[in-house]
Amino acid sequence: MIVTTHTARFDSLELDCGRALEPVDIAYQTYGELNREKSNAILILHAFSGDAHAAGISEQTGKPGWWDNMIGAGKAFDTNRYFMISSNVLGGCSGTTGPSSIDPRSGHPYGSKFPPVSIRDIVRLQKKLTDSMGIEKLLAVAGGSMGGMQALEWAVSYPQSVAAAMPIATTHRHSAQQIAFNEVGRQAIVADPDFHRGDYYDAKHPERGLAVARMIGHITYMSDDSMREKFGRRRLKLADEDSMFEVESYLRYRGGQFVSRFDANSYIVITRAMDTFDLNAGGGPLEARFDGSGTRFLVLSFTSDWLYPSYQSQEIVRALRSRNLDVAYVELESNYGHDAFLVEAGEQTALIKGFLEKTFQRL
Amino acid sequence: MIVTTHTARFDSLELDCGRALEPVDIAYQTYGELNREKSNAILILHAFSGDAHAAGISEQTGKPGWWDNMIGAGKAFDTNRYFMISSNVLGGCSGTTGPSSIDPRSGHPYGSKFPPVSIRDIVRLQKKLTDSMGIEKLLAVAGGSMGGMQALEWAVSYPQSVAAAMPIATTHRHSAQQIAFNEVGRQAIVADPDFHRGDYYDAKHPERGLAVARMIGHITYMSDDSMREKFGRRRLKLADEDSMFEVESYLRYRGGQFVSRFDANSYIVITRAMDTFDLNAGGGPLEARFDGSGTRFLVLSFTSDWLYPSYQSQEIVRALRSRNLDVAYVELESNYGHDAFLVEAGEQTALIKGFLEKTFQRL
Repeated sequence: MIVTTHTARFDSLELDCGRALEPVDIAYQTYGELNREKSNAILILHAFSGDAHAAGISEQTGKPGWWDNMIGAGKAFDTNRYFMISSNVLGGCSGTTGPSSIDPRSGHPYGSKFPPVSIRDIVRLQKKLTDSMGIEKLLAVAGGSMGGMQALEWAVSYPQSVAAAMPIATTHRHSAQQIAFNEVGRQAIVADPDFHRGDYYDAKHPERGLAVARMIGHITYMSDDSMREKFGRRRLKLADEDSMFEVESYLRYRGGQFVSRFDANSYIVITRAMDTFDLNAGGGPLEARFDGSGTRFLVLSFTSDWLYPSYQSQEIVRALRSRNLDVAYVELESNYGHDAFLVEAGEQTALIKGFLEKTFQRL
Repeated sequence: MIVTTHTARFDSLELDCGRALEPVDIAYQTYGELNREKSNAILILHAFSGDAHAAGISEQTGKPGWWDNMIGAGKAFDTNRYFMISSNVLGGCSGTTGPSSIDPRSGHPYGSKFPPVSIRDIVRLQKKLTDSMGIEKLLAVAGGSMGGMQALEWAVSYPQSVAAAMPIATTHRHSAQQIAFNEVGRQAIVADPDFHRGDYYDAKHPERGLAVARMIGHITYMSDDSMREKFGRRRLKLADEDSMFEVESYLRYRGGQFVSRFDANSYIVITRAMDTFDLNAGGGPLEARFDGSGTRFLVLSFTSDWLYPSYQSQEIVRALRSRNLDVAYVELESNYGHDAFLVEAGEQTALIKGFLEKTFQRL
């Protein structure tokens, strides 16, 4: 399946901060066919550093999508049955308007002038996209990590437009520890003298800071066990007597690789969107946010995920159940830590397939 | 108790890497009185960023020592009964020879020319210090985190010189995850353009990189729970609408504070010593390292310590017991994460007091 990225443009997007982006672009891919009733559309929501290329082989890069093991003919999200939509988030750097986009007022990249965005803003832009396709109600929204936050926000902001939501390995708001890990990444970027308060597009980018930020991220995505299995205390065989541990080499490689595909300002803007996301911000019980919702939920978490621990998924489940919503929750056994939602296709497939089928039949 | 730091100088210290430091200084403090038989001496071993000032009020700074809640008259390490010695580690930056010390061959700080040091080198220098005091056998060696590694190394390198060892919240070797966290800290320093491969002493120091490294460390020293209790999602009350989370402000403050008292090269040298420490490096069973040892052990770990999880202490206990050594192990309940060994004085005091008394009686 060779896939290509499309772009939709809208005249304006109002933001929670009070400002607006005019115009705004959103990059997206689709897989499968939208049926005549427009009732088989599923929106896939990517995690922090993802992009619109969720499945198939990219026409541009030749690489498979980030959830290709889950999306395709006969897979969990079966493209023979469903019409899949996947878009790049607002504030990102892979086709959707973000800090590296040209600000039409100045003719230069937004840089430090890019407004803060929220998960709700991200979802609001996605809603414009699905509206433009004539889709009144999505069969499902699904995503892991920050994708799960978007799935929750969809269910709360547009309950009539979502038949089912699948928040995976996620939370309804970040803990102090989750904010702290993001903040250290941001500080690594800001500490880079090439950052220039975000206005670096006509010079060297803050690559060293961004690489360090990514290394921290990678540790939190894996588990103690999965790192032990993958690296242990093995060293690179170098002539040098003071040879590196393999895990050190891996982190440096992944950090260096990341800077070629990601923008430091997007790192800051998107991690801020995650940190400020709080489904319960207004006070009062979390469950009140789900009042009157008819959305069905499948909530998944993973045993070794210490970045988004299972207790956070269970808080969501508790709130949903206390409003008597239709919610299934499974904690999956895995050693892969937070990465499990990307890696563990087997059990997720069985659970998601049945959940989607039943939702589709009930429409 | 007003205390002052002394310095002992030795002509030479042979290092595991094959090089030697000539001369070498070691900064230390003592509390209490050495008895006539020289049988009541206890060596306290500090963690990564500690120094010789473990107890009392510093004559120089007016501040209490890092384990003042544990060392003093009537405390866990009772200075009415025992003679306490605490020294700064080799490679450090608080009086003992390290990268910021003057290299007598050049008249300039060692900087990039400082040799790699091992935990065994650190302990070898401590042994010179206790030998110089005429102490043939220490009543005990005790320390948490990297201090626990030194306690283990003492028991293995000088089993006849240690009646009892207390490795607390530690491991006999770092896991891939522990190496990874240290490596990201090192990379944050190396990424700072002020680092100049370690030769920065006559210019601006790599303060931004060192501050980022410290922020990462702080997250790993706390627990998810303790961060929630301390910070939650509270924000600073600023006029700015985009106000900071308290946890962000705390991390920036601690990072900034650290650079005023710590040296970036010491950060690299000492974390390397921790990462390369492997009591089982020669292969074969770990327990073989304790063959013939008569040392008694008290091993402590803490339930919420995810940086040095209890399973690592239990590996040590298993090895010791399989050689039928006298070992007591307690996993203490605490929410404080790795910091617990510094904070939780109550239960540690009860355990350590009795253990020391019995060891002293049996001498």
